[in-house]
Parts: sequence; C-alpha cells; structure tokens
Amino acid sequence: METKRRTLGSLHAPSFNAHLDEIQRQDGQIGQRIWIDHPAAIAIIPFLTDSTILMVKQYRYAIGKETLEIPAGKVDPGETPDEAVYRELLEETGYDADHIEQVRSYYPAIGYSNEIIHLYKARGLHQQSGIVDTAEISSLEVVTLESLRSRVRSGQIMDGKTMLALGLVLENKV
Amino acid sequence: METKRRTLGSLHAPSFNAHLDEIQRQDGQIGQRIWIDHPAAIAIIPFLTDSTILMVKQYRYAIGKETLEIPAGKVDPGETPDEAVYRELLEETGYDADHIEQVRSYYPAIGYSNEIIHLYKARGLHQQSGIVDTAEISSLEVVTLESLRSRVRSGQIMDGKTMLALGLVLENKV
Repeated sequence: METKRRTLGSLHAPSFNAHLDEIQRQDGQIGQRIWIDHPAAIAIIPFLTDSTILMVKQYRYAIGKETLEIPAGKVDPGETPDEAVYRELLEETGYDADHIEQVRSYYPAIGYSNEIIHLYKARGLHQQSGIVDTAEISSLEVVTLESLRSRVRSGQIMDGKTMLALGLVLENKV
Repeated sequence: METKRRTLGSLHAPSFNAHLDEIQRQDGQIGQRIWIDHPAAIAIIPFLTDSTILMVKQYRYAIGKETLEIPAGKVDPGETPDEAVYRELLEETGYDADHIEQVRSYYPAIGYSNEIIHLYKARGLHQQSGIVDTAEISSLEVVTLESLRSRVRSGQIMDGKTMLALGLVLENKV
C-alpha cells in the first residue's frame, strides 16, 4: 500500500492529466510518483474477413514515428465503451460494423497510468465513407493475419495493444 | 507528423519525467500533448518448470490496487537490458537464472509514453535468497500456466505485459 500525502504538481491537457504526488511507501519511507489520470479507452480488431483486418497508420508524438496499429481511442465523457467503438471505427476507418463484442480489458501501463483499454472485435464491416479523422490517421491498410504475425515477429510492429490483439486471435479466443 | 513548438510544463520524478508540449499537428493546427519520457524497461517470464512461472504481488499506486504480475522494472542508467533482467529477477523474486533470452520488445502506451519494454524468458532458476525488494514486492507466487490463463480469462489479472507474455507462451513462441 502506498498512500498519497499531497500533490506536488500537475499537467493538464484537453483529454487527460499527469500528476506528481508525494507518497508514503509500504515501509514508511516518503517517495514521489508521477502518474497519468487517463479516461478509459477502446481498441478494435476490425475483421474485414476471417483472415484480414483493418489497420490504421498514424504519427505517434511520444515515440516520434509513424506506426501501423489497430484502431483505438479514448472513451468520450458521457459515452459508453460500445458507443466509442462505433465512433472511433467510423472516424478512423470510415467503416461501420454489424456486430461488436468485448474481448478483454487491460491496463497497458500499470506502473504509471490508470488507463484501462477495452479490447473489442468487430465483424460485418460496411464502408460508409473515407477516413474521417484525417488530422490523426494518414492511411488505412487491409492486413492479413499472417502478414501481421510476420510484422510483429520481425519487430516492425511494436504497439502493445496490436500485439495483444494478435495473441488473442492466434489463441483462437477472438 | 507533429512537431514540437515549445514545452509548456514538466514534472520530474527520480526515474522519469512527464512533459506538456505545445505542438503543431499534421493539418497545421496547434495542439497540446502530454507525454512521459521513460527509460527502457524489462519484463521477465521466469519459468520454474515448463508449466509454472514465478509471479510477484505488488501495490500499484496509479490504479490503487495490489496486482499479481510477471517481474519487471526499469533499466538503470549505465545498465544493459540483460543486466537489468538478472538484477530485477533477483531483487523481486530472490532467484538467479542460468539462461535468459529476449522474446519481444514493445511500446505499452504508444499514445503518451516512449517507454519500450523488452520482454524476456528466463530458465534454469535457482533460489539465492528471499525477496530483496520488500519495499515494492509483498509476495512471490508460483503460478501454473493453466491458472494464469484462467485468471486472465476471468479478468482477475489485467496487466498488459503479463497478458502479452501469456499470449506468447500459448502461441508456443516462448
């Protein structure tokens, strides 16, 4: 158990905050913890067929690179995770889905963030438009599971949620 | 592509920092990004036998809960990831290993952290001591892969790196 003594500082961005807290550790010592107070998020495995999924390319500021990932985003205030899945899928890919189903929920960075990601699969996809969120997403790629597997194995894809999703698909749990 | 215009604020903790940057987006708009500048980290799947691994219980401040996870930690300055694996394994479990091998590397929270986790497997374990890092680790648990699988399936274990490790084991890649 670690208990908060006081907040030493905070950073505020439009959708989440970071805090530096002074804490008391289990052994009684005083320490400091930086932590991210983050809304829930969703990630989607959008099956175009049984063996192909939709993935999106986007620039990731924190690592300074463009990456290929499964679609994902934050759950907006007042929105349910299910609603966020339909919204993000449409915004990032231009597709709608007949069926969505939650597969797993997990903490991606348990050491310093309270973010929880609800991972979904989506089937019965219908294209409604092009990419809506063109400020974030630069392109859409249709990827076979075999190609995804090989790109993860080679280290070309290193995004945790995409790798976790692939593991679940290969385990035949999805 | 997003480019940094200036740093609006920073939080500094002993082992990593958080920054709020003003950025220019791909579409030219000005925005803000909070990001964590984090050292590389390692996580270990310590095989006691082919079907059992060592896991550690620790309090996680960001989510306010005690969790059961595979051993993990930051790579210290001047240390290689391999060295960090041997050090963290000994500190968190009291065990030494004959063989370690890197399995995957990944970004756990690519949206707001540059942390990279190098995931290892360890075999040929020998107990050297009790838990060394008693300030962080409250207990050590020997867990069968079947029990780990069932605890992940039920949502009792929701730690991303532990779930990713299990996926790799089940995929027979470890």
